[in-house]
This record gives sequence, structure tokens and C-alpha cells, in this order.
Amino acid sequence: MFDRFQTDFDLLDQSFDHLFPLFRSITGPGIEASIDYFRQFMPLEVKKIPTGSEVFDWTVPPEWHCKRARLWAPDGTLLCDTEVNNLSVVNYAEPVDGTFSLEELEPHLHSLPDLPDAIPYVTSYYKRTWGFCMSHETRQSLQPGQYRVLIESDFKDGGVPYATCVLPGDSDREIMLTSYLCHPSLANNELSGPLTLLALYRRIKAWPKRRYSYRFVLNPETIGSLCFLYDYHNHLREKLEAGLIVTCIGGGAPGLRYKASRRGNSLFDSLAMRFTNGKEEGPLPFSYMDFTPTGGSDERQYCAPGFNLPMGQVARAAYGFYDGYHNSHDTKDFMGIDNLVESVDALEHFLSLGEIAGNPVNHSPFGEPQLGKRNLYPNMNSEKTRSDSNDALSDGRTSLERLLWVLNMADGQTSLAEIADKCGCSIGELKGIIERLEEEKLISYHQKDPV
Amino acid sequence: MFDRFQTDFDLLDQSFDHLFPLFRSITGPGIEASIDYFRQFMPLEVKKIPTGSEVFDWTVPPEWHCKRARLWAPDGTLLCDTEVNNLSVVNYAEPVDGTFSLEELEPHLHSLPDLPDAIPYVTSYYKRTWGFCMSHETRQSLQPGQYRVLIESDFKDGGVPYATCVLPGDSDREIMLTSYLCHPSLANNELSGPLTLLALYRRIKAWPKRRYSYRFVLNPETIGSLCFLYDYHNHLREKLEAGLIVTCIGGGAPGLRYKASRRGNSLFDSLAMRFTNGKEEGPLPFSYMDFTPTGGSDERQYCAPGFNLPMGQVARAAYGFYDGYHNSHDTKDFMGIDNLVESVDALEHFLSLGEIAGNPVNHSPFGEPQLGKRNLYPNMNSEKTRSDSNDALSDGRTSLERLLWVLNMADGQTSLAEIADKCGCSIGELKGIIERLEEEKLISYHQKDPV
Amino acid sequence: MFDRFQTDFDLLDQSFDHLFPLFRSITGPGIEASIDYFRQFMPLEVKKIPTGSEVFDWTVPPEWHCKRARLWAPDGTLLCDTEVNNLSVVNYAEPVDGTFSLEELEPHLHSLPDLPDAIPYVTSYYKRTWGFCMSHETRQSLQPGQYRVLIESDFKDGGVPYATCVLPGDSDREIMLTSYLCHPSLANNELSGPLTLLALYRRIKAWPKRRYSYRFVLNPETIGSLCFLYDYHNHLREKLEAGLIVTCIGGGAPGLRYKASRRGNSLFDSLAMRFTNGKEEGPLPFSYMDFTPTGGSDERQYCAPGFNLPMGQVARAAYGFYDGYHNSHDTKDFMGIDNLVESVDALEHFLSLGEIAGNPVNHSPFGEPQLGKRNLYPNMNSEKTRSDSNDALSDGRTSLERLLWVLNMADGQTSLAEIADKCGCSIGELKGIIERLEEEKLISYHQKDPV
Repeated sequence: MFDRFQTDFDLLDQSFDHLFPLFRSITGPGIEASIDYFRQFMPLEVKKIPTGSEVFDWTVPPEWHCKRARLWAPDGTLLCDTEVNNLSVVNYAEPVDGTFSLEELEPHLHSLPDLPDAIPYVTSYYKRTWGFCMSHETRQSLQPGQYRVLIESDFKDGGVPYATCVLPGDSDREIMLTSYLCHPSLANNELSGPLTLLALYRRIKAWPKRRYSYRFVLNPETIGSLCFLYDYHNHLREKLEAGLIVTCIGGGAPGLRYKASRRGNSLFDSLAMRFTNGKEEGPLPFSYMDFTPTGGSDERQYCAPGFNLPMGQVARAAYGFYDGYHNSHDTKDFMGIDNLVESVDALEHFLSLGEIAGNPVNHSPFGEPQLGKRNLYPNMNSEKTRSDSNDALSDGRTSLERLLWVLNMADGQTSLAEIADKCGCSIGELKGIIERLEEEKLISYHQKDPV
Repeated sequence: MFDRFQTDFDLLDQSFDHLFPLFRSITGPGIEASIDYFRQFMPLEVKKIPTGSEVFDWTVPPEWHCKRARLWAPDGTLLCDTEVNNLSVVNYAEPVDGTFSLEELEPHLHSLPDLPDAIPYVTSYYKRTWGFCMSHETRQSLQPGQYRVLIESDFKDGGVPYATCVLPGDSDREIMLTSYLCHPSLANNELSGPLTLLALYRRIKAWPKRRYSYRFVLNPETIGSLCFLYDYHNHLREKLEAGLIVTCIGGGAPGLRYKASRRGNSLFDSLAMRFTNGKEEGPLPFSYMDFTPTGGSDERQYCAPGFNLPMGQVARAAYGFYDGYHNSHDTKDFMGIDNLVESVDALEHFLSLGEIAGNPVNHSPFGEPQLGKRNLYPNMNSEKTRSDSNDALSDGRTSLERLLWVLNMADGQTSLAEIADKCGCSIGELKGIIERLEEEKLISYHQKDPV
Repeated sequence: MFDRFQTDFDLLDQSFDHLFPLFRSITGPGIEASIDYFRQFMPLEVKKIPTGSEVFDWTVPPEWHCKRARLWAPDGTLLCDTEVNNLSVVNYAEPVDGTFSLEELEPHLHSLPDLPDAIPYVTSYYKRTWGFCMSHETRQSLQPGQYRVLIESDFKDGGVPYATCVLPGDSDREIMLTSYLCHPSLANNELSGPLTLLALYRRIKAWPKRRYSYRFVLNPETIGSLCFLYDYHNHLREKLEAGLIVTCIGGGAPGLRYKASRRGNSLFDSLAMRFTNGKEEGPLPFSYMDFTPTGGSDERQYCAPGFNLPMGQVARAAYGFYDGYHNSHDTKDFMGIDNLVESVDALEHFLSLGEIAGNPVNHSPFGEPQLGKRNLYPNMNSEKTRSDSNDALSDGRTSLERLLWVLNMADGQTSLAEIADKCGCSIGELKGIIERLEEEKLISYHQKDPV
């Protein structure tokens, strides 16, 4: 199905154009149409948690169906229209059909004095209200008089959807990649995330070997991740090795900002720290930040104390770090399809090192294995062979010494990151040795005792 | 019963005057009368461990009843008389009725050459001997001749008493406050300790809420604490959260010296370190010292390796740090009733933070609780509400961010001290948030699994 | 049996002269005769693991019996002869009887261009080949022509031997001392190791008290230690407290280099670190190095991840750190019998501190024991006795304070090294106190719960 797109750029560019205009919310036709688009490329299973369900401390809200919302000036000018910009109405606004003086209208208007030409994005999912979002320039031009309001919205029983699929690997231990899909017509926050997941799905599907299984998840933010967790938290506690919440992954910053999981020591936390410290190299620079529950996205749910899942979050210019955050300046131009492709490259590289960054297990741990018979050690011991790694390779024993470190430390308790430190090299530089030892069945990954 | 004292100052002042002249030892009428005084105010249960009992490695000694002890000079002058100063005789002196040359008497005399006007305090509980304590000035004036000695003492079967009572709280986990009561006519070491306990009892009894139960213990030093431990060590191992041995808590130093428990990481150890580091503020400065078994008081018993109880010790000028230590210079003036009241204020504040310094437990740990419905989060998400803590409070989200940290870290494994560090504030500054979350039943303390 | 040697010097000197000429390999008559020599002095049990046995990842090789190997120049000069120097043939060379041109011979010759007068030591145990070792001077003088080769060797079924014995102590927990015995006619690497073990056996046998049992092991390097481990690894995992692989322990360096076990925290690791840091003193300086699996001796087997035994290695100028390593310059003169005796002194001292460096257990842990009745505390408490350690010793309480620290920390979880740090003194300085407390049955060692 990916065949019609020659490049990731084409895939992301055309998908963006399809998805951007859809009038999304956390429920309703917009998000469902969006998920359907992704289902063309990924075998997503979609589940809808019914309105009224108790999901942990939350209650699933009714679906919001908003046909159209409009605001007319006293002179009949159309000031706001969701068919022009679907940010124009407060998301989850209740239906209104009436006439209001400017004074009555004022509390229902939202604009950004500091960014006078931008339309803000405002939501009120759990407390009934209504309102319009407009540029501050427009707002300042409003004259006294009677304003006509028509919000054709409706609240229906339905539910909150989420979508997930898995690319299976050698182990049933999972790496999870997730992003949220609920904001209407905002590019960096949020289409950048789901689009990056789509491209990563295509890349990882093409890998010749996957040591882990890869789970992909799309959901509306907060309530959607809670619904997903409601169904999957036991599964994830058992199977999840590490994961990334991907968000704001387009423009605005030259590198990736990795926000650690609450644990602070997950596979990806440690790996991201190595990139930050310059111990590993990749297409984009990394910067590591500690977990905080005071802001952010779905990590506030995944990293709640009752779950404490090893989920990090990765962004470029995150929520709050660019002017266009949650307003109409968050455009395709700002995000940049080329930036997305760059991020996809960097994340694929990160994930490929994540494949081996865990704890290898030596299957011949009782003494040194007899390496000579596998041509992994010089068969003759003489002055001449003391700089050989084996009968064919004379490299000052660099390769042999790394191999001996890997075998000695591969006790299932020690990460390849720690082993690389002992070797004084990067995980990337150990990749060839790891693959050779896997071929010889001298080591493997994921031999964790299930107890 | 406290009613007749308007202030703590009155209570402590009048109690001091009653208790100071009593002729105490580790057993016998003096300590029993002293305990009886405290029983007017606190529902102390008194237990007496019989003479001859094996208490761990020790044997409970006989009671010492000393009616009076006198020493006359050859010219008939009365040199020592316990009715003048009950430090005059070696505590636990055997009965003597005889006449001795100065040369024979010398090995039985105790004085302080460096403090020539002070009468020292000398004991010999476990090895029979006798002697008199006098000022060095007096001693130097002694002339050769025959000295008359009359020590009207007696050893009787009886026992070592201890006294304890509890102020119950929400949890049966205990905070223990203890002091020793055996020294005759010494003020800072020792009446300051029991008197401070008495005032703290009155204060804590008046608290509107006690999260812990508070146990108060009075006993003669060393053997008394061993007798108490003999009966209570299993109970304490199970129930004791933290405790303080209160001693030398009057004059001689501007602040409190906290000596940590052997564990070095008890609730109070960590809290005292925060006061020492300036992370918490209170009426008196704190200084933290590590545990040592080489000196000190009953912590040598509580913190023996077989008990290893979380008992710290708190003092101002501790034993050995002031000239009047164990001699007649240790007076009410030196101790100072006003100093005691200051210490009571500081310790009550310390204990009030101890109430919440432990590990809170989030009762809604699966994701963030829905805070908006409890008016703990802004219900609308817009540019305007991004500096609000809730629909009513706009404080740059300081309060909300602290609340989110508390909820996220309240996993029952993490202390409020650690959480305060994450918030960049003091435990004291989190008190209001803790109380609010307790009201909402979102957190509580002491949910430790009993297994 | 040691009686005929007045001194360790005599014992080691005469034993060296007997053992040096024996034509050793990892199997066969040379090593067996060598072990037989040691059996005169130590009750070694010898076991032979049969040729063809699977030992972990290895297969026990056939025995190599080499009667003699010679190489003649075209003019009939005898160039190499194992009866002149048993390094002359590649160890485990296959039998050859033929004539070769210089060109054909060249790939079978081994010499050291950088050390032109030395004969190298070359082995090829697991890949069949043959060759001669000669000085580079000789090699450079070789002229074209036909060379006669006669290697009278044979491969027979037999096995790999190892030898072990135990000096029993108060506990069945073991200290293990091991060295390898397979190199022919090399002094520092290797006779220094087995000879040092022999002298240590004599010393430790004479100790009045052994808290641990001491196991001694001799084996051919690598395959021999694997054979020993094959039989003993469960035993060692259960009983081994710590051990030393002793090698290259003669000349070339002024002090001892201790290479830590893989654990990095064994009894001996911690003790060696104290010597390195100057916290303990002894006859020779120590330097500590971290474990590495990339080089070394039998620690590569003992410290493989499947065993992870607390085995350190001790050397002076280790393999690779002196010119004579694995060649004919490694002579008795280089090694030095006097150096060996120095090492024996230093190791005996190290082991004697190892006896008490573990975790003492207080048998009267419930409070302070009543020390006064044991004359370990002043029986009278007065100003005068406040610098006495007991009724007989006035030392500013130095001794009493150390004793109180030992008793308080002797919880079976804390090493005497940690206790010494609390006391601000060395383990050596606590020896007398430990012995006194052992006499009083107040402490003992090795009370570890077997579960």
C-alpha cells in the first residue's frame, strides 16, 4: 500500500494534505476519518470505549458532532466559520442559536493579544460552554451591536476511539511508538507525530530482523491514552521494554529533545543520555531532559505512579516552545515535511541501536567459550599472534578485546551501554560483534526469566 | 490537669522546682516519686522489672535506698550531707559507719580540680564501693585526723521502673519521645528532658489531627531503657516510625543538635538534615551529626545492632559540651526555663513536619485523576488558563505544578522530602497541598503493606 | 616434610632447581612429575579429566608426549634440541621426521627480532602444527639447504590433571589460593606462582587459629582451571569467600599488583583497595586494578559470568610487563628467590588481615553488653574515669571507643573495613580488640545464614 509513494517525503507530504483539513476532536467523525486514513497503510485495530464508561478516575464523554459554527457581525459580515478555519469554535462547544450584544459576547471570545493575527485553539471537553476563536485584530475591530451566533453542534452517545497494531519480532517484548490525533488543523502539534509514526512503521517493517516487537498506537490525547491503558496496562506492564511518545517532531529546533520516563533508567532513557553525552552519534543531536509530570502529553498518563511505564517522549520544539503552539501559526510550512523526514532518520537510527542496547545473555557462560574453534581467537599463542584478534585479523586485538568484554559481561544483568563503556567505544561500534556472536549462538537478547 | 498552668513556662517552672530536690537514682524512692509527679499530667503506665531479672546481657540491680549520707571533719564540722546536696554521696554507695584517717579516706573522695567550687556527680551502680563528692576547695582544706563517715544506705529487692503512655492517632504507627529520669539535682542533664516531654505531651494532645500515634517514655538511663526495650522491642520493631531521645535540651547552645539514628535514613534523620541544610525553617537552627555508639545516652541501647531502631537524639549543649556537665554547676539558671520553651516550640514544629514528611500514597494512581471536576485544574484549555492552577487561582501554576508532583510521586516509596526537592520548595510549603489532597481522599499516609 | 628446609628461602631455592628443568605441558609426564614434587609437602589430591571429555564449551585434549625434538642444519649442526632447552619445540607439536628446504622450514620457525638472543615460548594446543623456537641470532644465520627435522612426539588418550588440598579452619567457608603449572622452564611466569603457594601452605599450616579453611589448587592454565571448575563450581559458589590466583610473583616490580575479581567488591578486593589507598600497611606496596577479561590468566575462567567467583589475581611484574615474558630470559635470576620470600611475607600478612576483614557478628546485640563485668568498661562513672577504657587502661578511651564501634556495627552485614573507617584506624589496629571480643564470645565470624 506504500507502493504509490516513492519516498518518505511523498508519503508524508500527501498524507499531510489529506489529514490537515479534517475537523478533529477527541471524539466524533473527524478523528474517525483520520484513523481510517492511517488504516490504509497500517493494520490498525480500532476500539471505541463507550460514552459513560468509567475509565480509572475519568468518565468517557459523549461524542461531539459539530456540523458548523458561525458568528456574524451586526452588519451581517461572517466573522467566524468553521468551514473557513476549524479552529474558529471552542472545541466541544455546546449548541447555540441566538443573538448577543457585544458585551454579552465578550466572555465567549478568545484571541491572542501578543500574536494579533493568529487564531487560538481552545477546548473545554469536560465543562459545558461555548465560544469563538478569532484573531486579535478582528476582535479589536468589533463594534457594539447585536451578533448572531449559530453553533450547530450536538452531543451523542458514542465513545473515544484508539487504534493499535504490532510489527512482530523475535521476542514478544515490545517497543511502543505512540502519538495523539485529536487537534484540528494544527501541523507541528499535532500531525507531525502521527505522520512520523507512519514513516517509522514503513521503515521498521522493512528491517531484515526485529529483536523486539513494535507496537504503534494512535489516540486522542489524555482520555484516549487512558482508554488505551485501561485495556492494555497489564499487557504493557508485562511486555513493554521501552517506548516513545512522538510529538511536535517537525520544525522549530535543530535537534531532538528526549524527555525521560519517570523511571529515568529505561532502555531508551539510557540510550538518549548516551546520544546527549556524545557517546553515540546519529543524524540529529539529542538533548536529554528529566521527567516531569507538570506539563507534556500522554506521558502524564503512561508515567503515572500506578503504571510507571518506561515511556519517554521525543519532540523537537515541544508544546510551549514556539509561537505557533496551539494557534493557526502552526502550519505545514512551520512544521516542514523535510524536517519530519530528518526526524524519521534520526529515530530509526535510535531504534536500531535500541535493538541491541539491552542486556545480552551469554549462552556459554561457564568459562570462556573455546573461541579458537570458531575462528574468534588466534589458535597459536606466540609473540606474533599477540596483536591478532583471530587467525585472520590483526588489529591490535581491538576486536577480540571487545568480544571478550561482551562475553564476560553478558550476564543478562548488564546493558550493552555498560559494556560499551568498558570497551571505551559506542554501542554502534559493537554492532558487528553483537551480530557475529548472535550468529554463533553465543549470545542472545530477551532471555529474561518470565517470573 | 494542665489547667492550673496558664503557660508552658509556668508548667515547666513549677514542675522543675518540685522535681529538682528529689534524691533520684536509677531505682528507689526518688525516681518513683518523680514518676508519680508526671502521672498527674500524663496517663503513664508504670512497670517495675524485678531485681535479679535477666534483661538481655544485664541483671537488674537491687534498689538503693539511701536515707542520708554524712561526712564529718576531725573537728566535727559537717563536710558532706545529702540533705544539703544530694550529689554529696556516690550514687549507689554501700552503707558505712566508721572512722577513717585522711589517708584512708582519700581514695573515697571525688572533686574537680579544674572546677574547684563544683561538687561532681559520681555513680557506681554495678560495683560496690562508697565515697563522697565535694568541691575541690573543700577537699584541699582537709587536715589530717580522724573523719567520721555515716552512709545510711541499704540495698533491697525491688526493681527498675519505667513509665509510658500513648496519644493515639490515625495510624497505629508510632512516634516515640523519650527521656531519662535518674540524676539527682541536675538541671540541664537531666530535668530538661522529662520537662520538655511533658510540654510536648500537652501540645500534641491539642493537635486537631495526629497522623501517627505518639508514645512517651520516661526511664532511668541505660538499665531503664533496656528494661523498657525488653518488654517493647518487638512492638517497636513493628510499629516505630521514628523517635527522639530528648536530653540536655536547655541552655548552653543557640540551636538544636540532632544526632542521627544508626540507620542514618529514618524519617527524622532526613528531616533533621533538611533543617540543617536550610531546606526547612523553624524556631531554632539545627545541626546534624552522624550516629556514634561511643558516647551519648539511651540511643546506645535503642540503636544497638539487634534493635537498630530509628531513634535519633536531640540536645542543645549535650553531655560533655558544657562545664556543668555532671556536677553542681548544672543549675536551673544554666538550663533556663525560657530555653526549654524555645526547644518545645522548635520540636513541636519539627514533629508537625514529621507528620507529613513520610511517603504519601496516591489513591488514584492510574493516570492523572480528573482534577478539573474537583476544581484542582483549569476546566478550559486556552492561552489564558495556562498560568492558572485552577478555575479560581492564577499563580503561574506554582500550586498546580506542586500538586501534580505530589500526585505523580506519591507511590508509597517516595518521601515528601524527595517530592519537595522535585518541586524546589520545602515540606512546610507543601503542607496546604497535602491537606487539600487528603480532604479529597486523593492521598493518605501509612498505607504500608504490613507484610 | 618441610623439616629439611631451615628457611623459606631454602625450600623455594631447592624446589625451584628441581622443577625448572622438567619438560612441562598442559598434559603428560612433565606436569605429572611436577605435581608429584609438590605432593611431598602438601596432601594434594590429584584428579585427571579424561581426554575427550566435554568440559563446558571445551573438549579435553589428548596427552602430548614429546620424547625429544631436534632440528639439524644442512651441515649437520644441531640447531634445536629439547634436551638443551625445552622451549625449543612448539608445545603440542605433532610428530615429524623429514627433510625440508629453508623455504619450507621458515613458516615453522619462531624467534624474537626485538630480543635476538632469546628463545620464545610458543604453543598450539588445539590446532595441529609443528615448529621450532630459536634465538633470532641463530635464525638469521641460517643458510639455504636441506634441514633435518625430528620431532618424536605422540598424542595419547589420557587427560588433564589438577591437584587440590585443604587446610581446615573454624569455618568451612574457604579462601582459595591457586596457581598454574604447565609452562616448561620459565621462572617468573610460572614457577614463581606454585612455589609461593608452597611457602604459604607452610606458613598458614603453622597459624595457631584459622577462621577460614584454606584451599590450594595447582592446574595447567585455562583447560586445567576449567576441569577443576567443572568438578568444583557448585562447591565454590557455596563455600568460597575469596581467593587469589598467584602468578608472576617474583622479580620485575617493587610491589604487588592486585587485579580485582569481576564482582569488584569481594573480601580481598576491598582489602587490596585499602592497602592501595594506604589504609593498611604491609611488607610490600599494593596497587589495585579493576577486573578485565581481555587478558590475564585463570581469572578469565573463575570470573566468567556463569561462575563470577570472588577470585582476584596477584602478581608483581605480570605477563606482558617484562621483556622475558614467555621466552628464555625468564630465568631464576630475573625471578629471584629473595623476591618470592618477600611476596610470601606480604601475602601472609594480607591473608592474616583477610581473616578478620569480613563481617563480625555480635552475639549480644540487644543493647550494649554489660562490659564492666568483663573489665571492658570503667565500673565507676566519674570525671576521672572519662578517659579510661576500663578499670585498668587509661588511653583517652581510644580502645573503648573502637570496641564500642565494633560491637555496634557487628551486625553481620558490615565489614570490619567499614568499622575501621568509623574508628579512623586500620583493620590491623583492630586485631587485638577483635581477638579480645572473640575470647569473650561477644563476637564471631562466619555466622552467615546458609539459606
